[in-house]
Amino acid sequence: MLVERVVSQGLAHYSYLVGDRNEAMVIDPRRDCEIYVEKATDAGMRIVDIFETHRNEDYVIGSLELASLTGAEIWHADAQWDYKYGRAAREGQRWKAGRLEVEAIATPGHTPGSMSYLLRDSGGLPWMIFTGDALFAGDVGRTDLLGRERSEENAALLYHSIFNKLIPLGDGVIVCPAHGAGSVCGESIADRLWTTIGIERNFNPRLQVKTKEEFVAGATKSQPERPPYFRKMEEVNLEASFPRRRSVPRPMAPGDFGKLAEDAQVLDTRMELGFSAAHVPAAQSIWLGGLASFAGWFLTYEKPILLVTEDNDPTGAANILEREGFDDIAGYLAGGMLAWHMAGLESSSLATITVQSLCRLIDAPAPVWILDVRSDKELEWDGSITGAQHIHVTQLPERGREVPADRMVYVFCGSGLRSMVAASYLQARGLRDLTVVLGGLAGWKSRRCSIQRG
Amino acid sequence: MLVERVVSQGLAHYSYLVGDRNEAMVIDPRRDCEIYVEKATDAGMRIVDIFETHRNEDYVIGSLELASLTGAEIWHADAQWDYKYGRAAREGQRWKAGRLEVEAIATPGHTPGSMSYLLRDSGGLPWMIFTGDALFAGDVGRTDLLGRERSEENAALLYHSIFNKLIPLGDGVIVCPAHGAGSVCGESIADRLWTTIGIERNFNPRLQVKTKEEFVAGATKSQPERPPYFRKMEEVNLEASFPRRRSVPRPMAPGDFGKLAEDAQVLDTRMELGFSAAHVPAAQSIWLGGLASFAGWFLTYEKPILLVTEDNDPTGAANILEREGFDDIAGYLAGGMLAWHMAGLESSSLATITVQSLCRLIDAPAPVWILDVRSDKELEWDGSITGAQHIHVTQLPERGREVPADRMVYVFCGSGLRSMVAASYLQARGLRDLTVVLGGLAGWKSRRCSIQRG
Amino acid sequence: MLVERVVSQGLAHYSYLVGDRNEAMVIDPRRDCEIYVEKATDAGMRIVDIFETHRNEDYVIGSLELASLTGAEIWHADAQWDYKYGRAAREGQRWKAGRLEVEAIATPGHTPGSMSYLLRDSGGLPWMIFTGDALFAGDVGRTDLLGRERSEENAALLYHSIFNKLIPLGDGVIVCPAHGAGSVCGESIADRLWTTIGIERNFNPRLQVKTKEEFVAGATKSQPERPPYFRKMEEVNLEASFPRRRSVPRPMAPGDFGKLAEDAQVLDTRMELGFSAAHVPAAQSIWLGGLASFAGWFLTYEKPILLVTEDNDPTGAANILEREGFDDIAGYLAGGMLAWHMAGLESSSLATITVQSLCRLIDAPAPVWILDVRSDKELEWDGSITGAQHIHVTQLPERGREVPADRMVYVFCGSGLRSMVAASYLQARGLRDLTVVLGGLAGWKSRRCSIQRG
Amino acid sequence: MLVERVVSQGLAHYSYLVGDRNEAMVIDPRRDCEIYVEKATDAGMRIVDIFETHRNEDYVIGSLELASLTGAEIWHADAQWDYKYGRAAREGQRWKAGRLEVEAIATPGHTPGSMSYLLRDSGGLPWMIFTGDALFAGDVGRTDLLGRERSEENAALLYHSIFNKLIPLGDGVIVCPAHGAGSVCGESIADRLWTTIGIERNFNPRLQVKTKEEFVAGATKSQPERPPYFRKMEEVNLEASFPRRRSVPRPMAPGDFGKLAEDAQVLDTRMELGFSAAHVPAAQSIWLGGLASFAGWFLTYEKPILLVTEDNDPTGAANILEREGFDDIAGYLAGGMLAWHMAGLESSSLATITVQSLCRLIDAPAPVWILDVRSDKELEWDGSITGAQHIHVTQLPERGREVPADRMVYVFCGSGLRSMVAASYLQARGLRDLTVVLGGLAGWKSRRCSIQRG
Repeated sequence: MLVERVVSQGLAHYSYLVGDRNEAMVIDPRRDCEIYVEKATDAGMRIVDIFETHRNEDYVIGSLELASLTGAEIWHADAQWDYKYGRAAREGQRWKAGRLEVEAIATPGHTPGSMSYLLRDSGGLPWMIFTGDALFAGDVGRTDLLGRERSEENAALLYHSIFNKLIPLGDGVIVCPAHGAGSVCGESIADRLWTTIGIERNFNPRLQVKTKEEFVAGATKSQPERPPYFRKMEEVNLEASFPRRRSVPRPMAPGDFGKLAEDAQVLDTRMELGFSAAHVPAAQSIWLGGLASFAGWFLTYEKPILLVTEDNDPTGAANILEREGFDDIAGYLAGGMLAWHMAGLESSSLATITVQSLCRLIDAPAPVWILDVRSDKELEWDGSITGAQHIHVTQLPERGREVPADRMVYVFCGSGLRSMVAASYLQARGLRDLTVVLGGLAGWKSRRCSIQRG
Repeated sequence: MLVERVVSQGLAHYSYLVGDRNEAMVIDPRRDCEIYVEKATDAGMRIVDIFETHRNEDYVIGSLELASLTGAEIWHADAQWDYKYGRAAREGQRWKAGRLEVEAIATPGHTPGSMSYLLRDSGGLPWMIFTGDALFAGDVGRTDLLGRERSEENAALLYHSIFNKLIPLGDGVIVCPAHGAGSVCGESIADRLWTTIGIERNFNPRLQVKTKEEFVAGATKSQPERPPYFRKMEEVNLEASFPRRRSVPRPMAPGDFGKLAEDAQVLDTRMELGFSAAHVPAAQSIWLGGLASFAGWFLTYEKPILLVTEDNDPTGAANILEREGFDDIAGYLAGGMLAWHMAGLESSSLATITVQSLCRLIDAPAPVWILDVRSDKELEWDGSITGAQHIHVTQLPERGREVPADRMVYVFCGSGLRSMVAASYLQARGLRDLTVVLGGLAGWKSRRCSIQRG
Repeated sequence: MLVERVVSQGLAHYSYLVGDRNEAMVIDPRRDCEIYVEKATDAGMRIVDIFETHRNEDYVIGSLELASLTGAEIWHADAQWDYKYGRAAREGQRWKAGRLEVEAIATPGHTPGSMSYLLRDSGGLPWMIFTGDALFAGDVGRTDLLGRERSEENAALLYHSIFNKLIPLGDGVIVCPAHGAGSVCGESIADRLWTTIGIERNFNPRLQVKTKEEFVAGATKSQPERPPYFRKMEEVNLEASFPRRRSVPRPMAPGDFGKLAEDAQVLDTRMELGFSAAHVPAAQSIWLGGLASFAGWFLTYEKPILLVTEDNDPTGAANILEREGFDDIAGYLAGGMLAWHMAGLESSSLATITVQSLCRLIDAPAPVWILDVRSDKELEWDGSITGAQHIHVTQLPERGREVPADRMVYVFCGSGLRSMVAASYLQARGLRDLTVVLGGLAGWKSRRCSIQRG
Repeated sequence: MLVERVVSQGLAHYSYLVGDRNEAMVIDPRRDCEIYVEKATDAGMRIVDIFETHRNEDYVIGSLELASLTGAEIWHADAQWDYKYGRAAREGQRWKAGRLEVEAIATPGHTPGSMSYLLRDSGGLPWMIFTGDALFAGDVGRTDLLGRERSEENAALLYHSIFNKLIPLGDGVIVCPAHGAGSVCGESIADRLWTTIGIERNFNPRLQVKTKEEFVAGATKSQPERPPYFRKMEEVNLEASFPRRRSVPRPMAPGDFGKLAEDAQVLDTRMELGFSAAHVPAAQSIWLGGLASFAGWFLTYEKPILLVTEDNDPTGAANILEREGFDDIAGYLAGGMLAWHMAGLESSSLATITVQSLCRLIDAPAPVWILDVRSDKELEWDGSITGAQHIHVTQLPERGREVPADRMVYVFCGSGLRSMVAASYLQARGLRDLTVVLGGLAGWKSRRCSIQRG
């Protein structure tokens, strides 16, 4: 028997491979799907069915590619939409893999046709429930994907799905959601790697409500921003219009890279310090660990991408980009910034400051402009540096003009990573006097510098 | 955060590595313990505490070796025994790894001082319980390890541990036992790879009792045989007397192998068919998948072991043997039986028969002696071939003399694997007229040959 | 800098990846070509040029697939044929990869347009020569591929290529051929893994000649048989007509496997002993290590292949088959012969005998028919068992009728492997009284049984 | 048959594993020697003999550890010294591994008792020569290790070894030295990964001499500096005094790291840009790729080492350090500089400048102090920036005081890496006005800024 979770870091996407004897099933496969085939083959299994819990909006689903490798059948949810592939799973429908059995349970709310899949073990006991984006550890799926105006209606559906469909399965059933902590599909997903109906019923803050109205109010209150690339993913995941096979990003000599850069977008995935010291002019900084979350905000599908990476290996970044449909990767800077400088090419830099120095600076009379790029929720929970202006990093493409060009702007986030994303964005748009605060609010609080609440 | 189960196939032993931030803990490590260090290192963690749930009786615990690699502290259970290493965990004692917390809960019964360890997640919620051999998926720990005469007393303790300590933790808590299906530490462990208090409370057959007396009666009724090597393991796991570092089994030319074989025990881990066609005279057959279960019955610690393996790679067999303390592996036959024959050395063989042929044979008037080497439980559940004599394979060292030497004996089990173990044992002790039934009872039933019940 | 040889076991095919700075080249890539991309990517290189030394006849060349993954240009030799892809390399043409340089040198003989490629190091020195099938370690390429009648003419060309083109490069140049010991492309390739012009000039037996005539006489004397699949490969390697992407062989339950077997060819890649004990009726035995050499003789492109493998893993066998264009692999027997027997299905077996027993048997008066399936060369070098009949295993499809059906036939080769190939072939064609000699002539000689010379 | 080269990057150390049938040999094993055992085991071989070509001075030899894992015999060279382990190889002595044979050939010069080992192939032909540090691709071993005063005498010995012992083996013999390009054991080793007697005889610049005197003059002219850690290695490699088994570097929280740093040496192996932006105060920069070359100059055996690494993984750095005997690694900064700043701890930085800016600066009238830390040879070959002062980076511990503290010092090397090593060394010793030139002389020349020759 086989129960494996495949985690796509960054997206915090969880997919699952379960099987028994010679047959296996995959739930919500990712695009780079050789991993399922390898694991199934190692276990002497053949993947016979692929299940989608909903029309995914945050990544390119791998169902078609996986089906082409294995001959498996694809079962999608959200039958109300016009899928160009696979067949629609019906509530109550059942499938077998060896002695295991899976049953579809309609759990709308996140999308109108979301399906959960209940797995029964070899003895027929209700064992695991694949909840997609309906129920997470410590959170529930967002209900605003069809527009904020339909959020309330969907939240009511979700309430019904959770309280009348999922919870009655019993406290002992293991919950297998499509996302873990860090996903943009739920704001406050907990870092419990495995959870159960019982743990969620008792401790999930979103389920500690007395009435449906209370649940709906919570669900519609605050939702994380909706990245612009979601629209593309939704379309792609209905139409199956993506090429099946991608090529390897090619190494490029500095001169060639520099020439191509004029018509491309340069993405630098190094950590914040290396980027601050030197980067290709106009490069957008997104550190590798944040790429899945921020690519959709700062990159466009319209231009080729040129990569600068930490260790001369573009594979990690390319995988993440391709999961979100950014396939047009023209190449990467071979030899990295060292090669760039050895070729005598000019680079840009971004100033940094430690929290101690900033703390001293603020005490001085001269006015400074401090930009806080954290989310509303972080602001609410942790407070901010006294006097800081707040624009969430993902809002900069819209609100960047609010940042003054005539004085030094100190940019901070929780650590220094997102502030480098923000500062590089502003620098590429012409701002010059930018300084990133190393350590961010975490460092600030460690030094006991002054915090403003509310 | 990190939650990993490390499975030792064959023993069906589960150990666990859990960690958060820079710190990790291991529960019941196995002897080849580099795997925990590698996984922890990859996650940027250092193993700080090692927990034993009880004095293990079926394998060499890896606590000391792991402590020597990492500097971690060892916490053992069963404080009533005289441990030569580590410190005793006390009920209620707590440990931290990052934001995770573990608490010791006394759950005696399998051994007098068995401990379970409750893991709380980063928010302090009861999340997982490491139950050792107290509670399995679909079964409970055996209570006869101190002797059958104390089984009742221990079963009463276990009842208390399960119903008053574990079940009150709540249905949603995830249960992480020390063994899965296939272990000799529980007769009927289910193949649910993950389970919960709720699933066990509702569906574990051993927990579907109305009174303590009913539970005790069930627990003491039938227990699997107790392999003779348990005694050695129990001693070793208190005294920490095993060498820390093992060497690699050396390849041996056929001539050298043959000479050494006279004073050694030859173990052949190939599948049943290859063994039947030809094997080194007097070799004991135990196919690789059954090695963890049967080595303790058919091998001795007193003589060096010589290996014949399927693919010229002794690593898999050596790992399993060393987990049970069989360290004296003198070498393996380089080039396998092919090299043996090319060196012109003589081999033995064992006859086989398909179920069809046996079926025809039985219909004939001539009397045949059929030996069923399956367990009592299999006999009870599946019936047997009409007229077969029953000696469980593990009882052969004691009861082998009951098998007649003056006529053909047809040996069968469920598949053909254990019957080859049995036949090779009998052959090495001088019996000549032995035939193994390919496919065993499974094949027999597929052909609808006659079955005798009760 | 990067110089890597990729070895395809079985075919004993050598391909090469060389590169410097950001650019790499591949010589004679195999079909499963991800390995070159991975190695180049790890080294920060992009494959820019692919070279073929000749139209390969013994495997499917991977040039097109590799080009599709990398965008590299393909340079083929044998411009006289009508290639459907790539461009023809011209003698004297040069290519760069970083500071390395490659130059084409025409070395006809094995094929009319064979090319060698001379690699100069970063300082411009003649360093390595990729000789394809012109010059091997200890042997030269066969010259009979266009028909035995043109062998002499081609041998004269080859003499010129070796003595006037390759040897003048200098003794110190490292020779990188397309095959190592075990290939059917040269009869007596030595097992020196690396060699040089100097070693070959001094010690290669085929080069120890005084005149061209002597060389030609040697080259045309005896050549290994030409497997029938060569014709297919030659065609394929001009036309590029093969599908790009293959699927994974699927595990099949015994019942399904048995049904499909009626219209398929069953290939069993286990070692000789397991096969002898039991196999699916009419299965062809070719042990995994011999699959590359014998698939082309005993399999057909016209029927799907069903696999029985040693360890329930079809990957190794499938890779080898696909390198020779056997893409139609319908599935493999999940669970192997054990599952087959547990399903109650009937199997066949083949008798075996050790050399001792055969030795005794021969001394007895009753006449036995002994079949020697080794090659002419082995016969010549090692002698044979007194009284044995000789048919090379590859000639059995033609000469199988010479084997008598009315008495016991003892089949032997060098070890017992090829004799199982032969015996299974004969058994599937209706012969019943077949016994394979375990250990073959090697065992025979170890026992000092009687040998007949000449 | 098996011929494998194991490369230790950084040291550019080559060791070799050769074997046939069941037996293998290792030449000059490194300390982390599991790799030889794994490769041999995979090939079904047992390592029976370990050969040392000379008393190694640049790394801890792994002979003893490998012998303890395998039971192999150790054969050392340099019998004139008092070895505490193994036996001395005698000239002309022969050993077998399967059909392969190795013969010791005395080739003194680099050390007084250096041995080469000639490998004959399965047919007895001279095939490969393991030359240790006697003969490299494009260079010969240094002869000054016993002191510059004995360099001439040793060079004469080396001349004899090369011209009368090695070259007569024949142009076709493959040369397998103990080092490749980048080693400090030879100044100008070429990047030919494989070479031959013929290539070296014809093209090695050191062998293009007419007389012994000419050879000796070349050998004694210029030698790279002798790192201070050589003395320690020489001692260790006679005495076998090193612990056998090392533990894993432990992750440390920033606070603990900071406290320990006061009594330790902080080593930062990140690339130059990240280091320049921020580093732990007083940290020594040595980028990972240069660690093997520069650890011996800038680290001491007397203090524990604390690591800051690029990707939160200390394994690569720890391996390199341990190969040079730096075993006392107290831990590494978990979470890297990001965690350091988030803990609110203060960091240092180092200014950088691009070549364009420096070029403009130099044209200005204000005097600048430019420090060239490249080697004499680079200075001679490539020229330098007009007006630069020259101190080779390895001489800074001795000559650091020559650098002025009262004005801005611009430090450059070939690329920016060694200049960061130098600048961090100077900064830790109190200099404040330091700027590293990004791209170094390579960048400088690309911009066509002014170069001074001679």
